[in-house]
Amino acid sequence: MELEEAKRSSLELMETAKAAYLTTINIDGYPITRAMFNLRNKEQFPEFSEIFAGLGNKFEIYISTNTSSSKTDHIKKNPKISVYYCDPEDFKGVMFGGEVEVINDMNIKKKIWLDWWTKYYLKGLEDPDYTLLRLKPKMAQFYYRLQKVQFEPCE
Amino acid sequence: MELEEAKRSSLELMETAKAAYLTTINIDGYPITRAMFNLRNKEQFPEFSEIFAGLGNKFEIYISTNTSSSKTDHIKKNPKISVYYCDPEDFKGVMFGGEVEVINDMNIKKKIWLDWWTKYYLKGLEDPDYTLLRLKPKMAQFYYRLQKVQFEPCE
Repeated sequence: MELEEAKRSSLELMETAKAAYLTTINIDGYPITRAMFNLRNKEQFPEFSEIFAGLGNKFEIYISTNTSSSKTDHIKKNPKISVYYCDPEDFKGVMFGGEVEVINDMNIKKKIWLDWWTKYYLKGLEDPDYTLLRLKPKMAQFYYRLQKVQFEPCE
Repeated sequence: MELEEAKRSSLELMETAKAAYLTTINIDGYPITRAMFNLRNKEQFPEFSEIFAGLGNKFEIYISTNTSSSKTDHIKKNPKISVYYCDPEDFKGVMFGGEVEVINDMNIKKKIWLDWWTKYYLKGLEDPDYTLLRLKPKMAQFYYRLQKVQFEPCE
């Protein structure tokens, strides 16, 4: 598989995968994985598709979460994470790795916000329990059946 | 959610999830996630269901892989892994963590083997490129919608 094809397929998968699997490393050094909203999924989150299409780096990943969750504790100690998107029926997956950042810029947080999220963050956008994470990935691996393509996730 | 219900739902999910998401930690300390065959899936691997039903610890996990794969390099340096099963449509997931072992006992390897795997291990069961991993998990977390239940995965 060619590099360009792997990148294109990775972007497609990011836009269709049912979940983003986020792995952090806990204080004892164990990887901890859980499904998160895939905000890049065009069907689930059409409101954000324009924002993601306009990103400087198309592979940038945003994840919304509760400040009080264990993952925010993990990343304070160790910001190394992976985010994985998968279509298991087609044996297709793409994984991104790097150091995650906590976004405090309210202009960005305002853009990555939906009103029904008050279900999770009772006080709304300004709720201190609303944390927005960003991964500008350093490395990427695309898997398709028996093939594996590594690429630099910046374009 | 009650503990017993979480355990029961976790076992059910292990038997139906389309893939097992395995995370190892690479030599630079980054978590690396990829989908693996879920050998516990009763529909995909009916041949194994009796073996898993008869395990001393119902939550034991077996994963077949290529000895030459990067994950076997990772676990030599760092055996801490997670294995995650998920039904993203139902916001349900279960994660197991612990130290993985490489199984060299041919009696066990023979049980966890299917003839069509020569597609991956050309020389068959005795192929040195066939590695069988086992996780006797130390910890487990079951996720269902907004609930999270931690349990000891031994019974």
